[in-house]
Amino acid sequence: MKKGVRIILGNISVAADDLMNLVTRAFVAAGVNDNNSRNASRILVEAEMMGLGTHGVRRVLNYTERLRSGGMNPKAKIAVDRRTPSLALIDGDNGLGPAVGSVALHTALEMVAESGIAYVGCKASNHFGALAPYCIQSCEAGYVMFSGTNASMTMAPFGGKEARIGNNPFCVAAPIPDGVHFILDMAISVAARAKIRNAEEEGTPIPEGWAVDKEGLPTTDPVEALAGFLLPLGGHKGSGMSMVVDLLAGLLTGGKFLTGIQSWSESPEVPSGVGHFFILIDPARLIGREKFNAAMLEFSAVIQSTPAASSSSPVMLPGQREQQYRAESIKNGISISSKLLNQIADLAGMSRPIYREES
Amino acid sequence: MKKGVRIILGNISVAADDLMNLVTRAFVAAGVNDNNSRNASRILVEAEMMGLGTHGVRRVLNYTERLRSGGMNPKAKIAVDRRTPSLALIDGDNGLGPAVGSVALHTALEMVAESGIAYVGCKASNHFGALAPYCIQSCEAGYVMFSGTNASMTMAPFGGKEARIGNNPFCVAAPIPDGVHFILDMAISVAARAKIRNAEEEGTPIPEGWAVDKEGLPTTDPVEALAGFLLPLGGHKGSGMSMVVDLLAGLLTGGKFLTGIQSWSESPEVPSGVGHFFILIDPARLIGREKFNAAMLEFSAVIQSTPAASSSSPVMLPGQREQQYRAESIKNGISISSKLLNQIADLAGMSRPIYREES
Repeated sequence: MKKGVRIILGNISVAADDLMNLVTRAFVAAGVNDNNSRNASRILVEAEMMGLGTHGVRRVLNYTERLRSGGMNPKAKIAVDRRTPSLALIDGDNGLGPAVGSVALHTALEMVAESGIAYVGCKASNHFGALAPYCIQSCEAGYVMFSGTNASMTMAPFGGKEARIGNNPFCVAAPIPDGVHFILDMAISVAARAKIRNAEEEGTPIPEGWAVDKEGLPTTDPVEALAGFLLPLGGHKGSGMSMVVDLLAGLLTGGKFLTGIQSWSESPEVPSGVGHFFILIDPARLIGREKFNAAMLEFSAVIQSTPAASSSSPVMLPGQREQQYRAESIKNGISISSKLLNQIADLAGMSRPIYREES
Repeated sequence: MKKGVRIILGNISVAADDLMNLVTRAFVAAGVNDNNSRNASRILVEAEMMGLGTHGVRRVLNYTERLRSGGMNPKAKIAVDRRTPSLALIDGDNGLGPAVGSVALHTALEMVAESGIAYVGCKASNHFGALAPYCIQSCEAGYVMFSGTNASMTMAPFGGKEARIGNNPFCVAAPIPDGVHFILDMAISVAARAKIRNAEEEGTPIPEGWAVDKEGLPTTDPVEALAGFLLPLGGHKGSGMSMVVDLLAGLLTGGKFLTGIQSWSESPEVPSGVGHFFILIDPARLIGREKFNAAMLEFSAVIQSTPAASSSSPVMLPGQREQQYRAESIKNGISISSKLLNQIADLAGMSRPIYREES
């Protein structure tokens, strides 16, 4: 799109490159080096492009605050330890999460190209943004990816009444040659904590089954729910899946796990100790690229042609809606609030006028 | 335990070795070679030892029927194609599922010992029993395992009203040095189809949220539910997870997937085309065995010491209950119905008296 500004319903539309540069400068201004700043910026801007605003560029405000307060280390030396041609461990040195995640993914991409499969685990990292942006990168490179991250404790394990497991997100992605990739990006809870916060702000009750209060009893009161725990999907199944992500992101990496992870909202000045993992597989080294591509196209067609329960809602692939949003963002620019853009511009030390609302 | 018989509530208690030999002979009598018969027997007997009766030795009846009817190939040549030091594909030649699965796991165990990580995928296989028995083997060898299998279509993808995805089970297992390993073995549905069949037999309604009827509408009638679809856990999340298992078990292996899988209950004489996958990682090649063992013990202790919502139900690790059952079976023998045991003895061409009920 043409560089510059365009206003949509009070929001400003910004080209991805412009937003990427702005966010990069905000991280550089907080003391992070150019490369890590650019990597982290790419992850946040990609999330914004996909309509994942809760994990988008607004995170710059919190990330830079923690970089300045000592909660995160702006001068982190992200250390890659290649253990075998297919296995690597990364010490994030309490650096910017999406910068650590990007180094891990780049390492995994190099290793999978070499050996056909790779596991890369990171310890001593931080919140690393949404998973879908990493999926876009691995899909564009042609690999199947399974990735995830642990998080601070917000849920009780099945049968318990104390928060000892995290709402650990994970993703699985696979490339489809028509360009709309398979991207499942999900957390363990029935509903996101942000949805409960929204209900609290609006003063509305939450549906049953989303959360329990601090005694482990069912509640529809968002205030009691926020003082209690999110419920994992499928009871013992979701509870076990949270532990699986922790096994791969926390225990296998030599990092923190379960109650060892610090909550950054409760203790913003303490390193959170979050870990991540990336497992990549090259389909070309198994059944060959052509056969895999043909199978993925057939898979996509079978799913999307399923008769819909509601005629107005066709059956979609996981991540399809977000990729449609992304295509729109590439075409028309990223829609973002002028207030947020001005806050980021301030952090980047840039003059505001270029993001002034205009008609 | 002492060899021989012991009667518990109409059931007979059999030593694992005796049951293993009996089941092996039943497969040999159906034309399967000794090695594949023994491998398959081990998987079914292990499931029985863990209390997983629906996936235990009663499967011999159905498996041998399909071996004799041509639905499965007793003379299958299970072909292993090692693509790289860490990647292998297996063509099951429509053989006995747990025999194919065992060859795959043994291949993966060899490869992970060599290179630290392995992906082994199988195509042209069949129902391969429960996943937990494979988990026991990988845990005893010291590896972290992620495995799964696709299955015939019993669920609609999220938003659809036609069965196009399977209730694909998967597992993740990790060894714990105290011997009670982490074993998450789960399928995608909120409830197992067998539970709905039980409700049908008993003429009782099923809970809301388990299934929809054939129009995709909610139902509590087990008859309508069996004519309709199981519901995946977490809506779009479970729906996506079913697809993930299919990606790894069906698409990456060059095998059948989605609607390509044949239902063995509907078409027992047609090859089902099921695929499986095994991903193994060696913790010793990452953070080292000692550190990993210590972390797993701490993990296990943190989970099990969680204050329980109900004082009579302590919080347990995934798979802990089944491993307690297994320890009992090792100590006191496997409890099994005399009727089933006699049926298997008949298939094995053995005289019944050794399994005659005695007091």
